[in-house]
Amino acid sequence: MDGHRDIEALIGLMARLPGLGPRSARRAVLHLMKKRDSQLLPLAQLMSDVGRSVRTCLNCGNLSTGDICNICNSEKRANGQVCVVEDVADLWAMERAQVFSGRYHVLGGTLSPLDDIGPDDLHIPKLRDRIAAEGLREVILALNATVDGQTTAHYVARELAPTGVTVSSLAQGVPVGGELDYLDDGTLRAALSSRKPF
Amino acid sequence: MDGHRDIEALIGLMARLPGLGPRSARRAVLHLMKKRDSQLLPLAQLMSDVGRSVRTCLNCGNLSTGDICNICNSEKRANGQVCVVEDVADLWAMERAQVFSGRYHVLGGTLSPLDDIGPDDLHIPKLRDRIAAEGLREVILALNATVDGQTTAHYVARELAPTGVTVSSLAQGVPVGGELDYLDDGTLRAALSSRKPF
Ligand SMILES: [Zn+2]
Ligand SMILES: [Zn+2]
Repeated sequence: MDGHRDIEALIGLMARLPGLGPRSARRAVLHLMKKRDSQLLPLAQLMSDVGRSVRTCLNCGNLSTGDICNICNSEKRANGQVCVVEDVADLWAMERAQVFSGRYHVLGGTLSPLDDIGPDDLHIPKLRDRIAAEGLREVILALNATVDGQTTAHYVARELAPTGVTVSSLAQGVPVGGELDYLDDGTLRAALSSRKPF
Repeated sequence: MDGHRDIEALIGLMARLPGLGPRSARRAVLHLMKKRDSQLLPLAQLMSDVGRSVRTCLNCGNLSTGDICNICNSEKRANGQVCVVEDVADLWAMERAQVFSGRYHVLGGTLSPLDDIGPDDLHIPKLRDRIAAEGLREVILALNATVDGQTTAHYVARELAPTGVTVSSLAQGVPVGGELDYLDDGTLRAALSSRKPF
C-alpha cells in the first residue's frame, strides 16, 4: 500500500468508532477511497462542518450549533414539561419517537461515587434553577432502567421535592436492564403515556 | 436535535459504510460529536488529506498517492514475480501477511458478461504488456476461490500462454467459496508457498 501513514491513521481512527473493529475499519476506508467524490470528500467536509459548529446547549446539555439549542429556543416546546435523560442519545431516541413535545435536561451520565461523578457534574442544580426560570410544572424522569439510572432518578426526585414540581418517571414499559436508545418507538410511547408519580 | 441538516446528512453518509447501518451510524456520529477534538476533527482532516491525494497506480491498479505506487516504484519488489488480485483489499491482505515480495496486478473485479465487464476493463492487456516491460518470470493468480474468480483465472492463464511466462495459482489452502480478505496470515502463507502450476 501507498500513502501509508495517512491511510493507516485513518483506519486507526475509524476502528475507534463504536460498532467498528480493525477489520471493518479497513474495509470502510477502502470503500471510501473507491468512492472518493461521492462519499469520502463529502464525509470529510460534513465532519469538519459539524466539528466546527457543534457545542453543548448551556440550558439543557443537548448538542447544539449555538449557545442555546433549537428545542430550548422554541416557544412551542415551553409546555411546562421537562424530560430528564442521561445522554444525548436518549434525547435523540425520544425525538425520533415523536412522543414528547416539551423540553429536555441532559444529565450527561449517572451519579457514580466510584467514578467521582456527583450532582454538580450532572447539572442537577441547573435543573432545579430551570423549574422557576421556565415555570416548569412536571419533571419526567426518563432514565435507563439500570441500577445507576434508578439511583440517579431517586436522587433527582429527592432534590426536587422542595420545589413542589410534579416528578414522574417513565412507566415500566422499559424492559428491566434495558437502555432507551435501543427501544422501538411504540415502547417509548407506551412508557411515556403511562408514566406514574415518582 | 440541533444543527439538524448537517448531522442528519453525516449520519446518512456514515450509514452507507460497509458494516454500519442507520442505528450504528447514529451512535458513531454521536460518539464523534462527543470526541470533537480527539476524533471528529482529526478524522475530517485525514479523510480530506487522503481524498485529495489518493489515485490509482497507472501500472498495477493499486491505490496510490502518485501516478505510480510505492510497490511499482520499488526496485526491491522487482523480483520477476507478479501477483494478480481481484481487488485492492486482496492486495492489502497479502501485504499484511508479509508473505510476498514481488509486485501486484489489480484486476478491479472479475470477468462478467452479464455486468458487461470484459478483459479490457480488468486491465488484462496491460498485464500482458508488463511481462516484457518488467521481465516477469512468474504470474501468480491470487483470485478468490469463487466461480467468477476461477473463471477469470482460467481466462488470464489462457491469454498469457503465448508469452511463455510461468502461471501459477494459490494452492487449495484457500477455502472453497472463501474470500482472500477474510483469511488469516497463516492460511495465506501456506496457500502461497504450496502454489502449483496452473
Ligand atoms: Zn437546550
Ligand atoms: Zn503500482
